[in-house]
Amino acid sequence: MDSTTLWNHIESIREKSPLVHNIANFVVMNNTANALLATGASPIMAHAHSEIPEMVNICQASVINIGTLDEYWQQSMFLAADKASSLGKPFVVDPVGAGATSFRDQTLSELLNYRPTVVRGNASEIMALAKLNTTPTKGVDSTAESNEAIEAGLSINEAFGSVVCISGKTDIVLDGKKKVFLKNGHELMTKVTGLGCSATAIIGAFIAVIDNKLEAVSAAMSLMAVAGELAAKNADGPGSLQMHLLDKLHNLTAEEFSSLLKFSVE
Amino acid sequence: MDSTTLWNHIESIREKSPLVHNIANFVVMNNTANALLATGASPIMAHAHSEIPEMVNICQASVINIGTLDEYWQQSMFLAADKASSLGKPFVVDPVGAGATSFRDQTLSELLNYRPTVVRGNASEIMALAKLNTTPTKGVDSTAESNEAIEAGLSINEAFGSVVCISGKTDIVLDGKKKVFLKNGHELMTKVTGLGCSATAIIGAFIAVIDNKLEAVSAAMSLMAVAGELAAKNADGPGSLQMHLLDKLHNLTAEEFSSLLKFSVE
Amino acid sequence: MDSTTLWNHIESIREKSPLVHNIANFVVMNNTANALLATGASPIMAHAHSEIPEMVNICQASVINIGTLDEYWQQSMFLAADKASSLGKPFVVDPVGAGATSFRDQTLSELLNYRPTVVRGNASEIMALAKLNTTPTKGVDSTAESNEAIEAGLSINEAFGSVVCISGKTDIVLDGKKKVFLKNGHELMTKVTGLGCSATAIIGAFIAVIDNKLEAVSAAMSLMAVAGELAAKNADGPGSLQMHLLDKLHNLTAEEFSSLLKFSVE
Repeated sequence: MDSTTLWNHIESIREKSPLVHNIANFVVMNNTANALLATGASPIMAHAHSEIPEMVNICQASVINIGTLDEYWQQSMFLAADKASSLGKPFVVDPVGAGATSFRDQTLSELLNYRPTVVRGNASEIMALAKLNTTPTKGVDSTAESNEAIEAGLSINEAFGSVVCISGKTDIVLDGKKKVFLKNGHELMTKVTGLGCSATAIIGAFIAVIDNKLEAVSAAMSLMAVAGELAAKNADGPGSLQMHLLDKLHNLTAEEFSSLLKFSVE
Repeated sequence: MDSTTLWNHIESIREKSPLVHNIANFVVMNNTANALLATGASPIMAHAHSEIPEMVNICQASVINIGTLDEYWQQSMFLAADKASSLGKPFVVDPVGAGATSFRDQTLSELLNYRPTVVRGNASEIMALAKLNTTPTKGVDSTAESNEAIEAGLSINEAFGSVVCISGKTDIVLDGKKKVFLKNGHELMTKVTGLGCSATAIIGAFIAVIDNKLEAVSAAMSLMAVAGELAAKNADGPGSLQMHLLDKLHNLTAEEFSSLLKFSVE
Repeated sequence: MDSTTLWNHIESIREKSPLVHNIANFVVMNNTANALLATGASPIMAHAHSEIPEMVNICQASVINIGTLDEYWQQSMFLAADKASSLGKPFVVDPVGAGATSFRDQTLSELLNYRPTVVRGNASEIMALAKLNTTPTKGVDSTAESNEAIEAGLSINEAFGSVVCISGKTDIVLDGKKKVFLKNGHELMTKVTGLGCSATAIIGAFIAVIDNKLEAVSAAMSLMAVAGELAAKNADGPGSLQMHLLDKLHNLTAEEFSSLLKFSVE
């Protein structure tokens, strides 16, 4: 895996424009849909029990985000995971607020049993998922560094086969064999709501068309982090960062990407 | 219908500030509310079965958008359409993702029976609505050009009496007698989520106060397209386009409008 | 209460980063979450009956906004108010569209019985709440000036003990003993959806950590109004105002605040 491989994956999304089904949360539906469009994918949001199997079927990947779940949406998520699983379609789970309430944990526990292609969360969430969480979860923000969650990520990979992405100052993407460390991004990104959710949605686009899932997730996360880093340079605060990020996801060039990308593989 | 007529309609929204009821989808609630405010209208979003009849009654028009429908919201839409219909109040339907699932098609089929004042969709959606769709729907984006859907639009008009707006590179507005072709806009607008939904919401504001519905829809669509074209000129990507569009809906001048507007009537 | 006191409260949010639970409406979830983050707080949105008691328990304050309520969300709001009340945790109610429908009024009537720490609305809403509304409510926008609602605000304070904030051209914050008049802000702010809701969310952050609730609400409202005034100076319209506002909530300085703040206490 090198910079050119990752960039080629980014270009493939722009060319193939995969149709990505999202069960997103209410907070981020607009900016995740915009992130997918800016990346070159085609988003569709749908949660009705009456149409989820059909939606999963016509889409190339599904994104499940539990950010504002309730009992109805929980069932929507199970329906989507079940259908994706039975069709062999890739899907990614975003465990927003894992560990905050027992309802979230029960939901996530059942979702993991469908063996998600990818799980992406912050360190607190990944540790909560793996039941290794020693620091209390503080809402939806992480109180731990991403490298503290590597063991948790590995245990999730071992149990459910998922590629695990631990986002943070350094983003870590791992499967049972490799760990990818991505060191781009900017601290101001934590002051914009739902950029983690946008990353998860973008992962959905990449796993829709790229067979090597570790590469797919690494490409998605590196796009998000490099675009975010460039956006932050031109931002006066979180409002303008969100705007510049959508612009940059759309117009990022190979030169910008290769000159900024900082990553290593172990 | 000439440019001055259309501009006068745009000014009448700013002066009369109609109250517009919206059953919008979760993705676009924020930017459609902002689009209505920027245009000069006063939006209210409400979907509770317990209050829809009262809401429709106090508002001057209703907007029904099926983008993220479920079983509860489907009933909300039927309640709103029924009430608007029985009160003789105008309402517009946005058939997001028509043809994608049978649930959407069943919902739309019933909504059409309430004889919407206006239906606005892209070419794929309008063709799906008219059961003339020969190209498969790809999610919520159109795979067809707007002029391919004219026959479909005419059949909807004939069956349900609705003014039909087929949005695309050229926006087409038609009733049984005339066809209006609007040639403004910009390709980058397709990379911002929900601008079609914003157009539908703005149509809601125009049909609330303008008696000639073909003119009302044409004025709404020309406002959206000219403002979008100007916004795109100053945009670096889809993020800044959305921002500039809201600014421009608010501050567009008669001079900008008349110098840019490209339309014809057949 | 002087300018320095208010600024110190603003800084305390940045330092303490309170966790704020929100039952927000669909229109504003994104920008209220962003407003809380920009202010320095940590937002969490949750409405599931299955998790509300736990969420209220781990958060330091709750925000209840009825903007897009339905029967399920109404119960969510009652659960949150009940739990906050029984734990002695502060919560603020935003009576969006009070007076528009009987469903909203019934919901608000029951919410008031939980004795909210704060109620924030525009003049029409506050008057509707106090059953003193003589001008008909027009959707979610106010048709009255804030000073017309002082009597209504006082009656709510007397009946339920709440600090009442009447927002408008002049924002008025009152309890049974004092009235604070804040004269910042900009007219263009009324053309951006949900800035009142953002103010309410920010109030949630301030009552989470500041004991003197009149000061807490005054500090929150002065932050919002001063930041909005500065944002409007750089805005071309409502789109750029929203963006600049989030930037300014994040980077407002003591100097900017003290040089612009206009307020009086009676």
